[in-house]
Amino acid sequence: MRMIDIIERKREKQELTKEEIEFFISEYTKGNIKDYQAAALVMAIFLNGMTNQETTNLTLAMAHSGEILDLSTLEEIIVDKHSTGGVGDKVSLILLPLVSSLGVPVAKMSGRGLGFTGGTIDKLESIPGYQTTIEMEQFVKNVKQIGISMISQTLNLAPADKKLYALRDSISCVESIPLIASSIMSKKIASGAQKIVLDVTVGRGAFMKNKEDAEKLANTMIQIGKLAKRETICVLTNMNEPLGYAVGNSLEVMEAVNFLRGDMPEDLKQVVLELGCYMMQLAGIGKDLVENKNKLLENIKNGKAYDKLLELIKNQGGDIRYIENLDKFPKARYIEPLYNDKNGYIQEIDSKEIGKLASILGAGREKKEDTIDSSVGIVLTKKVADKVEEKEVLAYIHANHEKVLSEVKRKLKDRIQVSQHKIEKEKTILEVIQ
Amino acid sequence: MRMIDIIERKREKQELTKEEIEFFISEYTKGNIKDYQAAALVMAIFLNGMTNQETTNLTLAMAHSGEILDLSTLEEIIVDKHSTGGVGDKVSLILLPLVSSLGVPVAKMSGRGLGFTGGTIDKLESIPGYQTTIEMEQFVKNVKQIGISMISQTLNLAPADKKLYALRDSISCVESIPLIASSIMSKKIASGAQKIVLDVTVGRGAFMKNKEDAEKLANTMIQIGKLAKRETICVLTNMNEPLGYAVGNSLEVMEAVNFLRGDMPEDLKQVVLELGCYMMQLAGIGKDLVENKNKLLENIKNGKAYDKLLELIKNQGGDIRYIENLDKFPKARYIEPLYNDKNGYIQEIDSKEIGKLASILGAGREKKEDTIDSSVGIVLTKKVADKVEEKEVLAYIHANHEKVLSEVKRKLKDRIQVSQHKIEKEKTILEVIQ
Repeated sequence: MRMIDIIERKREKQELTKEEIEFFISEYTKGNIKDYQAAALVMAIFLNGMTNQETTNLTLAMAHSGEILDLSTLEEIIVDKHSTGGVGDKVSLILLPLVSSLGVPVAKMSGRGLGFTGGTIDKLESIPGYQTTIEMEQFVKNVKQIGISMISQTLNLAPADKKLYALRDSISCVESIPLIASSIMSKKIASGAQKIVLDVTVGRGAFMKNKEDAEKLANTMIQIGKLAKRETICVLTNMNEPLGYAVGNSLEVMEAVNFLRGDMPEDLKQVVLELGCYMMQLAGIGKDLVENKNKLLENIKNGKAYDKLLELIKNQGGDIRYIENLDKFPKARYIEPLYNDKNGYIQEIDSKEIGKLASILGAGREKKEDTIDSSVGIVLTKKVADKVEEKEVLAYIHANHEKVLSEVKRKLKDRIQVSQHKIEKEKTILEVIQ
Repeated sequence: MRMIDIIERKREKQELTKEEIEFFISEYTKGNIKDYQAAALVMAIFLNGMTNQETTNLTLAMAHSGEILDLSTLEEIIVDKHSTGGVGDKVSLILLPLVSSLGVPVAKMSGRGLGFTGGTIDKLESIPGYQTTIEMEQFVKNVKQIGISMISQTLNLAPADKKLYALRDSISCVESIPLIASSIMSKKIASGAQKIVLDVTVGRGAFMKNKEDAEKLANTMIQIGKLAKRETICVLTNMNEPLGYAVGNSLEVMEAVNFLRGDMPEDLKQVVLELGCYMMQLAGIGKDLVENKNKLLENIKNGKAYDKLLELIKNQGGDIRYIENLDKFPKARYIEPLYNDKNGYIQEIDSKEIGKLASILGAGREKKEDTIDSSVGIVLTKKVADKVEEKEVLAYIHANHEKVLSEVKRKLKDRIQVSQHKIEKEKTILEVIQ
């Protein structure tokens, strides 16, 4: 088999065989295929597309390019939850202890944030003592013991995907539906997921800017799931404005804790319940979605979900006194209010820009090597369509440096737009595709 | 300017600016742009195409990536002749001394053969003593002195084209009209051509397999010529069967010599006259094409073209005794006839396969480094549509090794097809585009 023939076939819009895709991924991972040949193939894939069968074969080849987390000793159906990325997205922190409290086993490996989107691991690490890197045996043991463990990706999962992603990034071939879909699904399969609930975010703060593209991505991932025998459900959620109110690591942990204590922002609540009811269904814990949602709400009300969060954190070495008393979290030096200057209604809160501003404050990374500042971020006080009066506070900026504070304050003003006309609230849950 | 943005723009089918193309070619030649980024751009160009303006800008950028032969001291219009490659193509050996004998100055840098097509330089080097690599000053002096010099490409002409061609070859992106057109034209411009007559070959033994693609290539090169102010005329010629009868280096030299002595195979004669009359027109030596053809024929008849060939060879250090007495050329060890086995008409002589078989005999190169054997090759005795009788000789195989002789003999049989039905002769000159 020769790489040049594979390139030519894709160049001519032909369907690549399983063997050709496996050859490419395996030899590319080993370094036997040069980057320039891989680049030519990737551009041909970008422009000529891939069938669902090709995309699935690519997914499986990438999933098997490195270590595969074996969760078979758990003897239960492992349902993974994944988001395609967003701003203010603290759903995993809330949802996973919640479903765990209802008996859904959670063995979750999460990523760190990059660019304007946050990562669950960065948020967990803002809790003093919480260990995100533990041995695999301990990870599986934790799941067996208390039904949940959430850690960082320490295994060498899908190295082909890492290598290919870096290449795509350097040749302007990131925004390809089959390549995005196979990248996401290969990591899920490598991390041991048997069934998958995907939060496909849509809008300004998401990878997919419009519903049409998000549907294409969702359908592609569902087809991969079918062909790869990993049942997959996609929930399309709105990411035009940040989810909830807080953007920033410990700020989001606090919002998540308050959520589990019953203080639930409406959009966040809808996303948690929607993803949760499908996780329960896939785990075989409840067929009736409405009933599942009621059970989820019940376990927030009765404190079981909150208790599960405490149990998780304690079990991972975290100091639960910070959770029990949120005031213990280190505060940023400056907590500066941003005032509104005219009566009206919130028209737009650009989540991508809010994410970037939080990143400027120190809550995110530009490059993988950057360190992050747990305490900084932005806490909004309003959601889109909310009525707002002159001189009311629109947001609090949590900053540790005066210079960035003034920069962010100036820019944030432009990112929260107020209209004199009434604004209709956008839907949070756009569609469920399965 | 960033390469990744240039890739993205071409990916999105946008027209690249002159500055972007110059940036790419200059930085890629210097090694500042990596092969994988260049590969992605080349595949995007292959699939999304280029406008004539982009193709011209690419041509000029590549032409200026290295040395440019300055022929301005010749104080005459230099008309270059180039063929897109064929089998049995000894046109330059005949045509250039011929037009030179009529006063068209010839300063010709030729290439070597690769794959199944032969190169003029390899043919010239089969003449003992002929110097193909001489100093540029001597080259120009020779043209001044006797009106003609034919040498090898010794200058570092269009190195960007060399680098890009090697990349295209390794990523299956050779067969792209704008990339082929700019590759050809960049070398012509770098070698000092002011006006250009192009022999665009069409058919089995050519790069362009059908007339439609050849027309596209021709039109693209003519547009480049217009935009780059190098008037260009394209003559589309048939390359389904080899041109003339001989395929192989000294064998073709002998056929060329015999041509200039008046023994002119019909197809070869048509190509020589057609290209010649346009070269004369572009050089400002004769507007009337019919008259030009008559003058060309006249100079064959009166021996002036043959004398010019002798003058050229002598001036380049070649031993003209070989030309005056063709029997002096070393013969191959075996000269084996291939017999026909049924009465009929020649239906097909696949020029690509004949070229490959000549290459197996040692007349061509697989890789640049291979050496060639001047004496071997195939001499056909028939052309397509010729009547042929049982037991008549179809071709002579000139070989130096018994093993390859038997292999070639066996294969050659299948490549010369005989039909019981009358066959119509194909046209040699398919079209002239200017």
